Amino acid sequence: MSNRPSHIRLNSHPGAGTVSRFPLNWGAPTAQERGPVIGTVNSGSDRNAIGAHGGAYSVYRALAVSSGAMSANNRPDLTNTSPTTPMGPFPQWTDPGKIVSLDPWGARVAEDFADELRDGVDIRPTIAVTKARLQLGEIGEAIAAGRLKADGQIVHETGDVAVTKAAIDPVWYLPGIAERFGVTETALRRTLFEQTGGMYADLVTRPDIKVFLPPIGGITLYIFGDPAAIADPKRRLTCRVHDECNGSDVFGSDICTCRPYLTHGIEECIREAQDGGAGLIAYNRKEGRALGEVTKFLVYNARKRQPGGDQAATYFERTECVAGVQESNMKHDALTGSGIEIGERVPIPDYLIPPDASVEMEAKKAAGYFTPDAPPSAEDLTRVVGRDLEQF
Amino acid sequence: MSNRPSHIRLNSHPGAGTVSRFPLNWGAPTAQERGPVIGTVNSGSDRNAIGAHGGAYSVYRALAVSSGAMSANNRPDLTNTSPTTPMGPFPQWTDPGKIVSLDPWGARVAEDFADELRDGVDIRPTIAVTKARLQLGEIGEAIAAGRLKADGQIVHETGDVAVTKAAIDPVWYLPGIAERFGVTETALRRTLFEQTGGMYADLVTRPDIKVFLPPIGGITLYIFGDPAAIADPKRRLTCRVHDECNGSDVFGSDICTCRPYLTHGIEECIREAQDGGAGLIAYNRKEGRALGEVTKFLVYNARKRQPGGDQAATYFERTECVAGVQESNMKHDALTGSGIEIGERVPIPDYLIPPDASVEMEAKKAAGYFTPDAPPSAEDLTRVVGRDLEQF
Repeated sequence: MSNRPSHIRLNSHPGAGTVSRFPLNWGAPTAQERGPVIGTVNSGSDRNAIGAHGGAYSVYRALAVSSGAMSANNRPDLTNTSPTTPMGPFPQWTDPGKIVSLDPWGARVAEDFADELRDGVDIRPTIAVTKARLQLGEIGEAIAAGRLKADGQIVHETGDVAVTKAAIDPVWYLPGIAERFGVTETALRRTLFEQTGGMYADLVTRPDIKVFLPPIGGITLYIFGDPAAIADPKRRLTCRVHDECNGSDVFGSDICTCRPYLTHGIEECIREAQDGGAGLIAYNRKEGRALGEVTKFLVYNARKRQPGGDQAATYFERTECVAGVQESNMKHDALTGSGIEIGERVPIPDYLIPPDASVEMEAKKAAGYFTPDAPPSAEDLTRVVGRDLEQF
Repeated sequence: MSNRPSHIRLNSHPGAGTVSRFPLNWGAPTAQERGPVIGTVNSGSDRNAIGAHGGAYSVYRALAVSSGAMSANNRPDLTNTSPTTPMGPFPQWTDPGKIVSLDPWGARVAEDFADELRDGVDIRPTIAVTKARLQLGEIGEAIAAGRLKADGQIVHETGDVAVTKAAIDPVWYLPGIAERFGVTETALRRTLFEQTGGMYADLVTRPDIKVFLPPIGGITLYIFGDPAAIADPKRRLTCRVHDECNGSDVFGSDICTCRPYLTHGIEECIREAQDGGAGLIAYNRKEGRALGEVTKFLVYNARKRQPGGDQAATYFERTECVAGVQESNMKHDALTGSGIEIGERVPIPDYLIPPDASVEMEAKKAAGYFTPDAPPSAEDLTRVVGRDLEQF
């Protein structure tokens, strides 16, 4: 919004002066024809997306501007920032229905829109691709146990693991998101506005703006081996789609299997990469299946204190009581539903399941989550009881 | 917002019908006198806070409601969810200037507002306190190396670590936040609205509503030993204030010292707790000092590709070019400035600093970050050069 000091524009409406000179044609064959996603906050007339780049981090940017630590008109210098490994374009990029929650061209803006950037247009990458070396205790153990070997390329002699990684900010094409959820775009926009307590009136007032930069966590991709292998149907891909769980992923809480699943996935990814395929970890930055950690901890307490203790039999029920929504096994169906073929599903080895995590594991097996064995019976679930609050 | 199907309220304004029957008196001596923070999206007339509970997670709640998986009028069942360890109230809770970014009463709503909840008022906890057992490879190593010993209480024979942990959602008292940043409340509200691309018009239209639930990450506290010790000036407290770094904290990237600092902090916290004090890890959910991971990866590339390579001498400069703001050493000054006395600062042992992290370490020492040794000279910094992109 380009406001005069004296004047604050609360809502904008379609029409004269509000139409960006950079219209977006989602799914167009080239970046130039698709147009740059512009979520600018300091050049309103160029804006063609609702929200702000960086999503939630725009709140911190606002604090930095408030305190005078940052100029409101700041533009990033993108010199030397482009991807360490170019990826795409791929045919899916030009199918408006295939990709609806990120901008496939989002890593290439410095190249694709060099002229516009030189002219001072506020275009920002929504994807960044770099390289890293990982030092993981669990991989060290896998090497020590002889399950993995150093190869000098993917796994160095030191045990360090070489990866290509990408950070992806969400970029929502609202008509496509609405279609995925089976609702009208109008209903989706209104519910997003109302259920967030009034976040972004433009969702309602600007039906002509089809792209939304929601202030939610993004996705980080960790690629093991040759990134080109991922797009090659003749080479195998091992993939783990992981939802962020700070309590386990970082702190190793033993009430769930999140980090064990993640590190087992990394071990499998490395093995596949060493066998000439590739490995991919898609890490979704949405804590506790997008319930948030406060809700998650409330659920833990409700589980531990219920009559009969923390039983697998009531695992989903307790979550639904507090969160209002069932935790559900949607990842597999979403993947296959989008046309991705899953050739093999690899179970987590029993020795990786932490003491207090059996409650969740057994409950999920009974609910239809993948297990190579017969799922537990309702009777079995009542016998799987977790640690009491007094035993921590 | 309680909208009739036919009618969407875009903005609300102070006055008839919009004043909540639950006014907030920030800093009042009791929870009842302070009043419950109500960020309800389905009972507008009770609302006394801008935004929605759960912050960014309200976006996912909106999707669940959109798709029919969740009722728009859902209320959490708070049975058995209250803190496993009651904390407070403390004198600071009733000083409106001391606590401005969280609701100190936020963990107790089920008790303090039992009557209102029974009457169906949409009051939700913004803090949850539970217990956990942590399994951390680094702690196992510390035990194997004889640096830590199992005591059967804080560190179990298995090496598991017992903790009390708390998840805290941000609750901003806007007059207090403005004061911290040295700006007027009006300027802060306007900048928050404009620099986020128009998030929450109520920031501008409802100066009568003083509390904001921003859609940003919260804080997780990990407490080692007796939580009561934290409030006891006669007992020692070891504390690490840690900013989230997914690349290191979860994946062990060797370009920074984040996870090593975190696990070293946990080891020190455990030792303090075993000596009769307490340990506290405050984990801030704001990726890369609130720059976000896309910006962070762009900076990595700019650092690695600059002439002369990734030098400590240009570490801060490269970050500022891309992010527009200097990474700065604010934690120490913020703590001491708020009246918290720091008795001792413990450096990270050299053997914990990963190969490629020296660039950041030396740059920060030169910039005034804590080091027991003499900080490196400008000359020294040019000699600290990190790994080349071709060497990953």
